[in-house]
Amino acid sequence: MANLVPQGELGIQSIGDFRTEAGGTIEDAFIAYQRWGELKVTDDGTSNVLLIEHALTGDSDVAEWWKGLVGPGMALDTDRFCVLCTNVLGGCSGSVGPASRHPDGDHWGSRFPAISIRDQVKAEKTFLDAVGVERVSAVIGGSMGGARTLEWTLMYPGLVDAALVIAVSARASAWQIGIQSSQINMIENDLFWHGGDYHDTGYFPTAGLGSARKLAHLTYRGELEIDERFGSDPQAGEDPFGTFRSPKQRFSVQSYLDHQARKLVERFDAGSYVILTDSLNRHDIGRGRGGLNKALASSTVPTMVVGVDTDILYPYHQQEHLSRNLGNLLAMGKISSPVGHDAFLTEFRQMDNILRRFIMLAGPTLKTPTPEQAGEIEFYI
Amino acid sequence: MANLVPQGELGIQSIGDFRTEAGGTIEDAFIAYQRWGELKVTDDGTSNVLLIEHALTGDSDVAEWWKGLVGPGMALDTDRFCVLCTNVLGGCSGSVGPASRHPDGDHWGSRFPAISIRDQVKAEKTFLDAVGVERVSAVIGGSMGGARTLEWTLMYPGLVDAALVIAVSARASAWQIGIQSSQINMIENDLFWHGGDYHDTGYFPTAGLGSARKLAHLTYRGELEIDERFGSDPQAGEDPFGTFRSPKQRFSVQSYLDHQARKLVERFDAGSYVILTDSLNRHDIGRGRGGLNKALASSTVPTMVVGVDTDILYPYHQQEHLSRNLGNLLAMGKISSPVGHDAFLTEFRQMDNILRRFIMLAGPTLKTPTPEQAGEIEFYI
Repeated sequence: MANLVPQGELGIQSIGDFRTEAGGTIEDAFIAYQRWGELKVTDDGTSNVLLIEHALTGDSDVAEWWKGLVGPGMALDTDRFCVLCTNVLGGCSGSVGPASRHPDGDHWGSRFPAISIRDQVKAEKTFLDAVGVERVSAVIGGSMGGARTLEWTLMYPGLVDAALVIAVSARASAWQIGIQSSQINMIENDLFWHGGDYHDTGYFPTAGLGSARKLAHLTYRGELEIDERFGSDPQAGEDPFGTFRSPKQRFSVQSYLDHQARKLVERFDAGSYVILTDSLNRHDIGRGRGGLNKALASSTVPTMVVGVDTDILYPYHQQEHLSRNLGNLLAMGKISSPVGHDAFLTEFRQMDNILRRFIMLAGPTLKTPTPEQAGEIEFYI
Repeated sequence: MANLVPQGELGIQSIGDFRTEAGGTIEDAFIAYQRWGELKVTDDGTSNVLLIEHALTGDSDVAEWWKGLVGPGMALDTDRFCVLCTNVLGGCSGSVGPASRHPDGDHWGSRFPAISIRDQVKAEKTFLDAVGVERVSAVIGGSMGGARTLEWTLMYPGLVDAALVIAVSARASAWQIGIQSSQINMIENDLFWHGGDYHDTGYFPTAGLGSARKLAHLTYRGELEIDERFGSDPQAGEDPFGTFRSPKQRFSVQSYLDHQARKLVERFDAGSYVILTDSLNRHDIGRGRGGLNKALASSTVPTMVVGVDTDILYPYHQQEHLSRNLGNLLAMGKISSPVGHDAFLTEFRQMDNILRRFIMLAGPTLKTPTPEQAGEIEFYI
């Protein structure tokens, strides 16, 4: 019998000892989650769950980071669906991760094993079992959440009615691995990182994590959008054109990136950042499945693929690759935006339309109450 | 009377005390250079000089980094032209820079003032005066060399017959400033940087400069090209998929980037890297000229603009912007390549064609012996 926390509240669900794909063990693992809308489960195990997968530094509060897209009558309609979102395994927003307490009382730190995208999905599946959800209507996610969505369709095809995969690729590209490894190195090179065991030192690798975030942000945002906003303007009261260069005399864009770094450092654990970034490096749906295209061809879950035209981190050709090779493509969509990769979080109007279109297209396959709302769907294009 | 070193040899020319745009002084400055082909100067001061501007970590040995493009009968034909290439002001391949000795006997280090692209051009102009070259047939350069070429056409329009500007923009974009500042920070955060005064410590900020180069390289290369070569393959003998993440267990692309970092660290000074990267941040042809487009419109030098279709550092739309606004556009060219920004250094066949086309188009304006070779030019397209 399904048993979930009240709507909007943060629940923590134990999933027992977790064995990773690479042979590590996370004892007494647990997964944090939130839900919106009433859960409906039929006798044959089908449910009205829309499982939402967050991105690298996201969390289970999808009603916040997709504000306006989750609620009664909204694109992710909580009158019809139970919108469920977990914090990823290895994260720092409630689920077990490097900053959590090990059963021995100290922090996990460097003892936290490496995890793959598949581990994240397996942990989520174990979580669903624990709360009594056998199968879901759809899995939806962008970026790292898109990678998890893709793995869901291949690891548990019988348990997912449809999938929406946004701004991701079938495997990490060499360029992504390069950029992501550079970020990991920035954190490792911070003396306060302490080999990953800084949690009990009273110090935090702020500079390293901040630098990593600044670099990441430049891959999340389109250069046109950043240039429109900041150009080569100096920061107010500073002079980056002085006689001698100084880190304190910044351009406006540097101040903006410093602000992004500060915001992340305040809310995110460096250990989780490293573990999750490494899991993106390991992303490869072809591993152990005869290669990328064979794995994609074997997919049976109706899947819609969406990309962003100006994404430099997961360029649109990667989503075209997915759409050409997926065994059961539902539809292909493109977000047009100067924003780049982050557009799936910022282009509200287009995402609203994409989510509604996905729900409509997937409607016949969703084993939930038939969508009488279909006629009312309003498209904004 | 002009007086140059023998062909191919490295010459060092004093240019006296140099005053920077931002008010700094470089006492007893000097510029290194090489030349190929005989210099011809007419009584009215015109010459057969093709002045070549190298990129950030390049040097005066253009016959090496554009191998096969400089020589008798080649695209930059030394039977006809005197190909002249200086090492940039602030560099470390013979010209005065942070690693050079200050007149007081110690290294310049942090005392070396910030320089702009305009300073680099002014220093080169002073150098030309010193060796007796009054005006040049053409200025040609890519990337930072392209920025210098553009400034040449605006600072000394009467002294340049034609210009070829490759893979650059009219000013630094916010994204470039972000990426470039990130690289500067990586070096500054290396303890061995020592505030820029490491030259006498016996230590070198190897890790910081290496990290900066790895990041830079990812912006110099197209993600398609890197992915074709390395994909997500593990480095031979290493296992990036192990139970615990380790910096020693790398993907193949990480090993490749480490190799690029090692190569640069062996040949390049960290102080020069910072000074020159900062000069790219300061690049803005609109400064003091009424803005970008007014500056471009005022250009009278016949200029050919070339970009690379997959360049993420200087995206092609930036060269389109140049071509739409330049006051005297000679032609527009595009290098098609998966390589990205570096294509102007690696796509030999296309560069050969572009250089020959430029020389042909600029022919009538070049105040050199008329190009009877024009009829013999072979196009490979």
